[in-house]
Amino acid sequence: MSDPRPIGVFDSGVGGLTVLRAIREALPEEATLYLGDTARVPYGTKSPETVTRFALESGRFLAEQGIKLLVVACNTASAMSLEALRAVLPIPVVGVLEPGARAAVRATRTGRIGVIGTEATIASGAYPQALQTLRPGLEVVSRACPLFVPLAEEGWTDNEVAYLTAERYLAPLRDRIDTLILGCTHYPLLRDTIQKVMGAGVALIDSARETAIEVTTQVRRQGLRGQGGGTPRYYVTDAPARFRAVGERFLDEPLEHVEWIRLGEDDAA
Amino acid sequence: MSDPRPIGVFDSGVGGLTVLRAIREALPEEATLYLGDTARVPYGTKSPETVTRFALESGRFLAEQGIKLLVVACNTASAMSLEALRAVLPIPVVGVLEPGARAAVRATRTGRIGVIGTEATIASGAYPQALQTLRPGLEVVSRACPLFVPLAEEGWTDNEVAYLTAERYLAPLRDRIDTLILGCTHYPLLRDTIQKVMGAGVALIDSARETAIEVTTQVRRQGLRGQGGGTPRYYVTDAPARFRAVGERFLDEPLEHVEWIRLGEDDAA
Repeated sequence: MSDPRPIGVFDSGVGGLTVLRAIREALPEEATLYLGDTARVPYGTKSPETVTRFALESGRFLAEQGIKLLVVACNTASAMSLEALRAVLPIPVVGVLEPGARAAVRATRTGRIGVIGTEATIASGAYPQALQTLRPGLEVVSRACPLFVPLAEEGWTDNEVAYLTAERYLAPLRDRIDTLILGCTHYPLLRDTIQKVMGAGVALIDSARETAIEVTTQVRRQGLRGQGGGTPRYYVTDAPARFRAVGERFLDEPLEHVEWIRLGEDDAA
Repeated sequence: MSDPRPIGVFDSGVGGLTVLRAIREALPEEATLYLGDTARVPYGTKSPETVTRFALESGRFLAEQGIKLLVVACNTASAMSLEALRAVLPIPVVGVLEPGARAAVRATRTGRIGVIGTEATIASGAYPQALQTLRPGLEVVSRACPLFVPLAEEGWTDNEVAYLTAERYLAPLRDRIDTLILGCTHYPLLRDTIQKVMGAGVALIDSARETAIEVTTQVRRQGLRGQGGGTPRYYVTDAPARFRAVGERFLDEPLEHVEWIRLGEDDAA
C-alpha cells in the first residue's frame, strides 16, 4: 500500500531543516513540504499560549496542503503544543521530543541525563516528564541556553565566543550526566563545541535523526509509504531571502521553491 | 495650551523601554502608553515588508488609544517604516534614527562616524543616508551586531563573552571613527563593554536621550504639553510575564498595568 501525499515539516524558522534533512535521508521516496514561521521566529522566548496559537495556524496550513503526516520539528512547539495539534488535526502528528527522550534513555548507562533547550522548552518541563514516563527514577538536569540559537545563526559555532558561552552554560552539567539531549534544532550546529566542553564521555542526542526513525516507523506502520521524493517545497511567513541564505547553511544545498505565505492574519485588514 | 492625551511609544519588545524612560525623565508631565510587539519580536532579522506591516498594525493600535504623538523606539522600524507610518497616521511620528544621527554629527570632530545595529537596520542603509543628508561628505562605517540583543536580554553585558563578542564586531571600526551610534535600543546596556573595546576617545551616541529631546521639542512646538504624567500603561502581544521580568531590568522599577492584546489577527479565526 502506498500514499503519495507529502510529509509536512513545521518549524518556527530554519532550524527544522536539520529534521527535514534527516527525514529525506531516511525516506528518499517521500515528498516533503516545509513551513518555517519566519515572520514570528523565535518561539523559544514566548509563552505557551502564543506558541500554541502559532503552531495551530501552521499545522492547519500544512494540513490544507494535503499532507499525510505532520512533523513538528521545533522543540519548543513540540514541548508546548503537541496535544493541541493532535486534538485538531485529522492526521498523525510526530514531535521531536519523544524520539529524543527515547534515544537518551537507550544511551544512558548511569541514568543521569541532561537536557538543553530554549527558555520555553526548559520552562515547560516537557523533557523531564517524557523521560520519567519512559523510565521512572531517572535523574534529569535541565538548562536553558538562549545564546546558542543566535550563535548558530551567526555562524559562530566553533570560535572562542561559542566555546566560552558553552562553558558557562554547561559547566554545571559536566560530571553530573552521561547523556545530553540537544533539545533545539539549532544545537547540532554547535555539536563539536558542546562535545569539547562536556568531554568525550558524554553522549550527545540529536533529535533530528531519532525523529526521522520515528517518522519511518509511522509511515511503514500506517501503510503511508510514498511514491517518489524530489525537491521539497518550502513555505515561509517572512520574505524568503534570509531563509534561503541561512537555510543553505543547514542543508548544504540550494533551496528552490520557497513561497511566502501569511498565517493568522486578517487578509481583509 | 495643553493636551492631556498620552504620548505613545512603540517597540518590537522591551528595548524601547530605554526610550520611554528617557521621555519620562525629560517630560514628567506627560502621560505615556507603551506597546511591545512581544509575540513577533525581534524585528531586526526580518524583511522591510514584514517589519512595516507589523509597525503599521502597532501604530494604528496606539492611534486608536488616542495618543497625540507616536514615538517609534525601535531602530529597525524607524529605519524601515517611518514614512509608511507618517503616511497613514493623523499624528506626528518621531523615530529614533534622525535624533541619533543629529547627535552624532554634533559629536564628531573628524567626520568619521560608525553605526552599529541589527542586520535589518544596517542593511537598510538608513543611518548613512540620514547622516549624509545632515552633512554631505561624512565617512560612515556600518556593522551589524546580531549577538548584542540576545546578550543584553541574557544579562551578559560585561562578562568575557560580551567582551569577546564586542571585540570581534568592533575591532574593524576601531581607529577609523571618533563617534559610534548605538543604533539599537538594547545596545546601551552594553555601553561599558563597547566603550572598553572602542577606547575612551570614541563618543557613544545613545538615541534614547536624543529622541527624548526631539519629543520635547515637538510637544512644545505644537502646544501639546501634558497635564500630569503618572505610571505608564503597557500593551504587549505575548503573555506579560517575560516582558515584566526583562522590562524591570531596563526600567529599574516594577511594570504595572500590562495588558495582553492581539495585533493583525483575524479574531474570527
